[in-house]
Amino acid sequence: MGVYLPVRPHFICQEIVMNVVQLIRLKRDGHALTDTDIDALVSGFTAGDVPDYQMAAFLMAAFKSGMTTQEMVALTRSMLHSGVVLDLSDLPGIKVDKHSTGGVGDKISIPLAAIVSACGVPVPMISGRGLGHTGGTLDKLESIPGFTTAMDIPSYRRQLAELGVVMIGQTDDIAPADKKLYALRDVTATVEFIPFIAASILSKKLAEGIDALVLDVKFGAGAFMREEKDARTLAETMVRLGEEFGTTTVALLTRMDTPLGAAVGNWVEVAESINVLRGDGPPDVTSLTLALAAEMLVLGGAAADAREGVALAEKAIASGQALTRFEDLVDAQGGDVSVVRDPDSRRGSTALAEVRVPDDAGRVVTAIDAMAVGLACVGLGAGRARKEDSVDPLAGFTLLKKPGEAVRPGEALALVHASSSGRVAAASADLLAAFSFGDTAGEAPELIVDRLDATGWEPS
Amino acid sequence: MGVYLPVRPHFICQEIVMNVVQLIRLKRDGHALTDTDIDALVSGFTAGDVPDYQMAAFLMAAFKSGMTTQEMVALTRSMLHSGVVLDLSDLPGIKVDKHSTGGVGDKISIPLAAIVSACGVPVPMISGRGLGHTGGTLDKLESIPGFTTAMDIPSYRRQLAELGVVMIGQTDDIAPADKKLYALRDVTATVEFIPFIAASILSKKLAEGIDALVLDVKFGAGAFMREEKDARTLAETMVRLGEEFGTTTVALLTRMDTPLGAAVGNWVEVAESINVLRGDGPPDVTSLTLALAAEMLVLGGAAADAREGVALAEKAIASGQALTRFEDLVDAQGGDVSVVRDPDSRRGSTALAEVRVPDDAGRVVTAIDAMAVGLACVGLGAGRARKEDSVDPLAGFTLLKKPGEAVRPGEALALVHASSSGRVAAASADLLAAFSFGDTAGEAPELIVDRLDATGWEPS
Repeated sequence: MGVYLPVRPHFICQEIVMNVVQLIRLKRDGHALTDTDIDALVSGFTAGDVPDYQMAAFLMAAFKSGMTTQEMVALTRSMLHSGVVLDLSDLPGIKVDKHSTGGVGDKISIPLAAIVSACGVPVPMISGRGLGHTGGTLDKLESIPGFTTAMDIPSYRRQLAELGVVMIGQTDDIAPADKKLYALRDVTATVEFIPFIAASILSKKLAEGIDALVLDVKFGAGAFMREEKDARTLAETMVRLGEEFGTTTVALLTRMDTPLGAAVGNWVEVAESINVLRGDGPPDVTSLTLALAAEMLVLGGAAADAREGVALAEKAIASGQALTRFEDLVDAQGGDVSVVRDPDSRRGSTALAEVRVPDDAGRVVTAIDAMAVGLACVGLGAGRARKEDSVDPLAGFTLLKKPGEAVRPGEALALVHASSSGRVAAASADLLAAFSFGDTAGEAPELIVDRLDATGWEPS
Repeated sequence: MGVYLPVRPHFICQEIVMNVVQLIRLKRDGHALTDTDIDALVSGFTAGDVPDYQMAAFLMAAFKSGMTTQEMVALTRSMLHSGVVLDLSDLPGIKVDKHSTGGVGDKISIPLAAIVSACGVPVPMISGRGLGHTGGTLDKLESIPGFTTAMDIPSYRRQLAELGVVMIGQTDDIAPADKKLYALRDVTATVEFIPFIAASILSKKLAEGIDALVLDVKFGAGAFMREEKDARTLAETMVRLGEEFGTTTVALLTRMDTPLGAAVGNWVEVAESINVLRGDGPPDVTSLTLALAAEMLVLGGAAADAREGVALAEKAIASGQALTRFEDLVDAQGGDVSVVRDPDSRRGSTALAEVRVPDDAGRVVTAIDAMAVGLACVGLGAGRARKEDSVDPLAGFTLLKKPGEAVRPGEALALVHASSSGRVAAASADLLAAFSFGDTAGEAPELIVDRLDATGWEPS
C-alpha cells in the first residue's frame, strides 16, 4: 500500500529532521542503512537531537523491515560508544564475563563468578536489576547486609586487579543509548526484535572491557523467548556479533520452563548460591553452573576443554577456594561475611508460611510454571512492578518439591519468606496455582539443549 | 525476526500506556484493530493522552502492516468526530464540494465553485494553503486585495444560504486530529500511505456538512502520486470511503505532468480563473473545469448526466452568470471587485522579467516539468518553504509556450511576476530548466484518464 511521493517534506524542514525522515523512509522501504546513517540516528537520539517520535518510527520500521548483520553491528557499535568503554587490557589475564537472558531462580552468576575467579580467570561482571518476572543479580547481592553494587571505575579496576572478581551494576556512563532506547522500545512495542535485543546486550557487555563472553540463552515458559528457535536465532546472532567485535563468544541454549533450583527470590537465592559453593547445591543449578564455568575457563585459557574446565571448577568447590573467593568478594564490596558463613543466622531467614499439597492434588508434581512463580515472587515483594519500586531482600520462595517428585496431601510443597506478612497469603495462593499435579511424571528434558560458538563462521 | 515475548511491559505501566502498547503490538503483528481500538488511539492522541512516540510507532506499524477497509472507516470517523461536524441539512439544495489532491497551476476550484453555484448547486468549499511544490486555493484567493478566507461558522452558513457559494480555510475546530496526525506523519515518513491520505482528505471534507463530493485525483511528475496505479487506488479508496459515510463520491483521475494552464502562482492564477469565467481560459483548464462542474451538477441534481452538466456550465459562462457569481463571492468575502472586473489594473500585474528561448534550444517545447515549475515558483515566493512563511500574492509565472508549441531562439518563453525583484533571476533560471526542447513533439496524452464512482460496489 506504500505510495512513493516526491521527497516533499524534506526541504520544508531543518537539516537534522530532513535527514532523519529520509533515514526512516529508507528503512521503511526495506533498504539497509550505512554505518554513518545508523550512528547519526543513535548519537542524535542519545544527545536529544532526534526526538522520541522519530526514533519510535525508525524502531518500528526496522522491526518490520528487518536489519542486516552490518546494520546490527553498526547499531551495537553506536550504542557501545555512546558512553564509556572500559579498557582493562593493562590488567593481566583474559577477562571473561557471562550473561543470561534471564529466568526464574537464575542465581547462577553468583556462584559462577566466584568459581571462575577462584580458578584464575578474572571476572569483571556488570549485572542488572530485576524487572518483570525475573530477578536481578544486583537485587540478590544487595540482600547481603551492607553489600554495595555501586562502584566507581577506578575502584572497579582495582578490585578486579586485586581479587580477580568484581560484581557491580550498570553505571550511567555505560551505553546510555541503550538505556534511552530500551525505555522507548518498552512503550512502543519494539522490544521483541532480535537485532535490538542482541545489540542491547552486547553493547553493555562489550563496554565492560572483557575479552570473551559466555551467554546463557534461555527459552520456555519462564523465559523472555518462549520458543527454542527464537532463542537459537538470538544466540547465533549474539555469537556472531561478539566475534565481529573481536570478543570470543559462546552460548549455551538452556531450558527455562521450571524455576532453576529450589530458591526463588533475593536472600534465598544467595543462600542457595552458597550451597552450590559448598558443593551442596540443587542438581540443576550445580550442573548449569559447572557447564558455564567450564566454558569461561576454556575461554579464559585456564582449561584446554570443557571436561577439564568442569574438573577445575569442581576442584575449586571441593577445596573451598570458590567459597573463600565469594567471601572475599562480599567483604571487598562491604557485605556482612558472617551471613555468608552462616546463612541461617540471617535475621528473617525463617519462612513466614508453608504452602501445602491440596487434598485433591495428584500423586506427583508434573510441572511448575516458572512465569507464574516469577510473577508470584514479584507480587510478594522480591521484584519490581515498576522501575522505581524497592525490593524486599527477604522475599522469596523455597520450592520443596520439583517436577517428578511424589507428593502427599497436606505435605509441605514450598516455603514463603518475606520481611512482613502483608502479601504472604496472596503470594502463597499464586505460588500454589503455579504447580501442576498428576499421577505420573514424564521424563525431565535436558536442561542444556545446545552449545553455539563461532566455529566455521567468517567475520563479515 | 519478531519474537513473541510474554506481555511483560504491560503490568509495569499505567493503564493508558498499557493498552496503547498492546494496540501497537497487534497492528505490528498484522492484526486488524476494532473501531473502539482505533477511536481510543485517535482520541487519546488528539487529547494528548497518547504521546507522539507511541502514535509514531502505531503509524509506522499500520504503514507496514496495512489497514482493512473497516479500520480505514474507523480512522476516518474518529478523525471526523475529533472536531466540529457541520450540519447544513436545514439549508436547501444538495451541497457538493470538490477536492483536488494537488497539482501545479491547479486553480480549478476558483472558476469551478462560481460556475456550479451559478447553476444552482450550493458549494460550501473549505480549502487549504499551499505547502510544498503546489499552491493553495486560499493563498490564491487572498491575492485579491481584501479577500478574507477566515470566517466563523454562522457567517459561513449565512453566506452559503444567501449566495450559494462560500470559500474558506480550514478552521481549528474542523478535524483537529487530522492536523495533529499530519504534523506527526510529516516527520516520521508515514505520509505516503493511502489509508492515511484518504482518511485525512475525507475526514476534513465530511466535516463540512456536504452531501456529495467530486475528487480530482492527480498523478504524474507534478503530483503527490507519481504513478497512475497509486492514484487509482487512492481514488477507489476515497470513493468507497465517501460512500461508507453516505456521501456520494465521484473521482476523476487526471494527469499532472505539465502545469495546468499558463499561470502558476497566486494572483496570476486568479487572473487566469477570471479568463475561464469569461470563456477565454486555456483549453486544459477550461476542459477540466467543465468536466468537474458536470460531475458536481449531476450529483447536485441540476443535470441528468455529464453531457447536460457540461452544457449547463458552458451556458453559465456564456451568460456571464458564473463571472457575476464570482464577483459576488469576492464582494461577500471583502475582496476588491474592481480587480476582478479589470485584472490588468491590479497594481504589480506587470511582469518583472521575461524568460527567453535559449539559442541552443530545439524547435519545439517537448515537456515542462510541473514539479520543477512548482518548486521554482515556491523559490520565487509564491509558496511556502515552511508553514510559517508568508507568500507573495504577486509572485508567479505565465507560461507563454506549452508542450507541443514551436519556439525560436530569443522568443519569449515565460513571464516572471513578483512584488520585488530579489528572487526573480534565480527563479527565472529554475523555470527555464523546467523546459525541455526538441525537434518534434509527441502527441499530447489525454488530461482526464478515467472516472470512478461507486457503481457496483456494496457498502461493507
